[in-house]
Amino acid sequence: MPRIVDLMIERATILTMDASLTIIENGMICVDGDTIVHVGPMPYPADKATIDNNVLPEFRARKTIDAAHGLVLPGLINGHTHAAMTLFRGLADDLPLMDWLNHYIFPVETNMDREFVFTGARLACAEMILSGTTTFCDMYLFENETAKAASQSGVRVLVGEVLFDFPSPNYGPIEKGFEYTQNLIDAWQGDPLVSIAVEPHALYTCSPDLLQKANEIAIQNSVPLAIHVAETQFELETIQSRYGKKPFEHMESLGILGPHIIADHCVYLDDSEIDRIRNHGVRVITNPESNMKLASGVPRIPDFLERGIVVGLGTDGCASNNNLDMFSEMDSLSKLHKIHRMDPTVMNAVAVVKSATIDSARALGLSDRIGSIENGKRADIIIVDMNKPHLTPMYNPYSHLVYAVSGSDVSHSLINGKLVMENRKLLTMDLDDIMTHACLQADRVRKWTAK
Amino acid sequence: MPRIVDLMIERATILTMDASLTIIENGMICVDGDTIVHVGPMPYPADKATIDNNVLPEFRARKTIDAAHGLVLPGLINGHTHAAMTLFRGLADDLPLMDWLNHYIFPVETNMDREFVFTGARLACAEMILSGTTTFCDMYLFENETAKAASQSGVRVLVGEVLFDFPSPNYGPIEKGFEYTQNLIDAWQGDPLVSIAVEPHALYTCSPDLLQKANEIAIQNSVPLAIHVAETQFELETIQSRYGKKPFEHMESLGILGPHIIADHCVYLDDSEIDRIRNHGVRVITNPESNMKLASGVPRIPDFLERGIVVGLGTDGCASNNNLDMFSEMDSLSKLHKIHRMDPTVMNAVAVVKSATIDSARALGLSDRIGSIENGKRADIIIVDMNKPHLTPMYNPYSHLVYAVSGSDVSHSLINGKLVMENRKLLTMDLDDIMTHACLQADRVRKWTAK
Repeated sequence: MPRIVDLMIERATILTMDASLTIIENGMICVDGDTIVHVGPMPYPADKATIDNNVLPEFRARKTIDAAHGLVLPGLINGHTHAAMTLFRGLADDLPLMDWLNHYIFPVETNMDREFVFTGARLACAEMILSGTTTFCDMYLFENETAKAASQSGVRVLVGEVLFDFPSPNYGPIEKGFEYTQNLIDAWQGDPLVSIAVEPHALYTCSPDLLQKANEIAIQNSVPLAIHVAETQFELETIQSRYGKKPFEHMESLGILGPHIIADHCVYLDDSEIDRIRNHGVRVITNPESNMKLASGVPRIPDFLERGIVVGLGTDGCASNNNLDMFSEMDSLSKLHKIHRMDPTVMNAVAVVKSATIDSARALGLSDRIGSIENGKRADIIIVDMNKPHLTPMYNPYSHLVYAVSGSDVSHSLINGKLVMENRKLLTMDLDDIMTHACLQADRVRKWTAK
Repeated sequence: MPRIVDLMIERATILTMDASLTIIENGMICVDGDTIVHVGPMPYPADKATIDNNVLPEFRARKTIDAAHGLVLPGLINGHTHAAMTLFRGLADDLPLMDWLNHYIFPVETNMDREFVFTGARLACAEMILSGTTTFCDMYLFENETAKAASQSGVRVLVGEVLFDFPSPNYGPIEKGFEYTQNLIDAWQGDPLVSIAVEPHALYTCSPDLLQKANEIAIQNSVPLAIHVAETQFELETIQSRYGKKPFEHMESLGILGPHIIADHCVYLDDSEIDRIRNHGVRVITNPESNMKLASGVPRIPDFLERGIVVGLGTDGCASNNNLDMFSEMDSLSKLHKIHRMDPTVMNAVAVVKSATIDSARALGLSDRIGSIENGKRADIIIVDMNKPHLTPMYNPYSHLVYAVSGSDVSHSLINGKLVMENRKLLTMDLDDIMTHACLQADRVRKWTAK
């Protein structure tokens, strides 16, 4: 008797992203509930028509997806973003940092409310599903709204309320920020999609006390702590002059370095700082397009990888990118380091696809559940439609994913076993409604920033 | 009596890219034959339904396109590519240059024939139309095939047979190459879509004699001469050691600098070389993604622009990019120079959109006909569908075009007055047929490069 499963993806070219980087041609994946229960070759040749009645010798599926023209891979994991900033996309570009912050970002963030964040995060979830992202790590204000938006959209998220020394438009004084964070952790405990992190903004906006208290909450609750570190030259100089230490040296002296730390950006690290994060098992998320667009600098990613440091990939927010397309981000990750090192061999396509899948999962502490297509893992899977002129012919799937595919080539997305996009149709959200609400919030932004 | 025209685009946001960078909200464009005959505001408010029976007070159109959710701009102009190299996309990446050339590119190019180039160029035309390019400048072998493919696809092209000192798989010895070029010029004289350029490959592959003879043909026939110049450090050193001169200094000494010269890449130019090309009116095509992927170097584009040098934009071939998407190229053009200069204000969105439209037209010597939406110009027009989550809301159309739009957001394309894509459906070509033929050619490539 064949085993009955919920879903079967058949006739696929599967990039498993497992430890051996197994590729299965004419393969099949069976999903039951939220879990991958079988990955292997099809029992029939590729040119045989779709299996009648969804029956194979070992499996019978309630639903079958024929992926004969598809490349199937783990859903992409956006390791660092600020989802609600979709509502700022294109509001102000090409400006010096302080102009941008003082005249656009700060006036908006001062006025922001829960509805704004929910609307922006929902818009971000739509964009992410449509471009192949199935998990994102978020830092922003009113983050319970981001968690709700992700949960309703069916997107996996690691989310945390941004903490800093000054009063927040959300929680007010920092003590309330710690409370808000603890409430997030308690409220979403055991949720299948939403996990919580503690997220102090950065070393120059958070006092040593704040950082240590935040770290205590992270340790006590066994959740990660995500923080921007060493993003700009300005930050490096500020920390040096304020504490007489380099950024990670400062964190080390506060006793808050460890494998639970997710460090975003990490642009300004010398050898001693690189050794420090390696020794403490700190994980890194790199954001090449944001670093380029804001002219922040180029992190030493090839050196990090050579020393065994885990590096995931993120887009950063839409105010500094300006999109959430992880395929475009992969392309930039490779090309930025090739030109920076003047070496066409660095950051090859395999390393880059790893950074957006299994290595982002490892960086976020989620690799026991996601990041590869393997038996027992959660079914977070995307199908890329390769039957397009710009993807024909295909000699090497990794190369196409990094250098030729764009987000709009993703046809299907499955998250936690649930189909959230089928043939580019979103199944969990009403796109017209989302865009209508986004336009209403944009009218508020125009008022807040009017000179 | 209203004037009867062939086509009317109505209710559009029009980025004209004219000298004043006029933007028309709720605008209309009338096209008759191959020509734009009217550009202006709609006589009715934007929320009025599409005009009944295609009638406006002044115009009646045989066909009307409602562009209410669209951003309308001049078709993008890819200033430098090798179209048939679509068939090499992803064949070999992340390799040192000599490995790549010796084990992949040379074995394929030795075996190449007319059918290969026609098939690859047709595939490129499909990809270009689908991503908003309406004109490209091409350099390759068997270029009559590329001209034919472009002509059949309805794409505008400036094309030239690559000339070099060694025997060509197409024409054999160089004398035959000059003949082939003259034949191209004569055969396509007066063609509405195809123009011919003389295209010696580069200074290190072409003797002074070849260059001077090529230049004579260009001058005699009043056509441009396109050539790779100063692309790599290797090239700079070779020219210096062979002739004791810098690349453009070498060309100047041969008497072949002038406003008819289209110089591709221009990565290694010092101040004296920049002065030289400005003084001679040489036009530049920059190819940021290729320069990054091959780790060639970063050209001084912001300096070129500051000194009034015309700079157009190109993707280069698919073996070094690996796509023909000019939107992605615009994004990279901006971000590369921001990070290289460590200045977020350089290469702003307006400058970048200019480079891909009117400035590419000027660089190719075609700006009397294309590059902007103005009365009397040829109707090369694209519509970008902005009703997408990743393009909602819109504060600034230039920003979206550079930092958020991807090629797949283009919904309509009109070239020389003819609709070649409507709601993403190609009207001039059979995509399945093109991809089937591309796969057959790829099988040949696999044989040629098998170890």
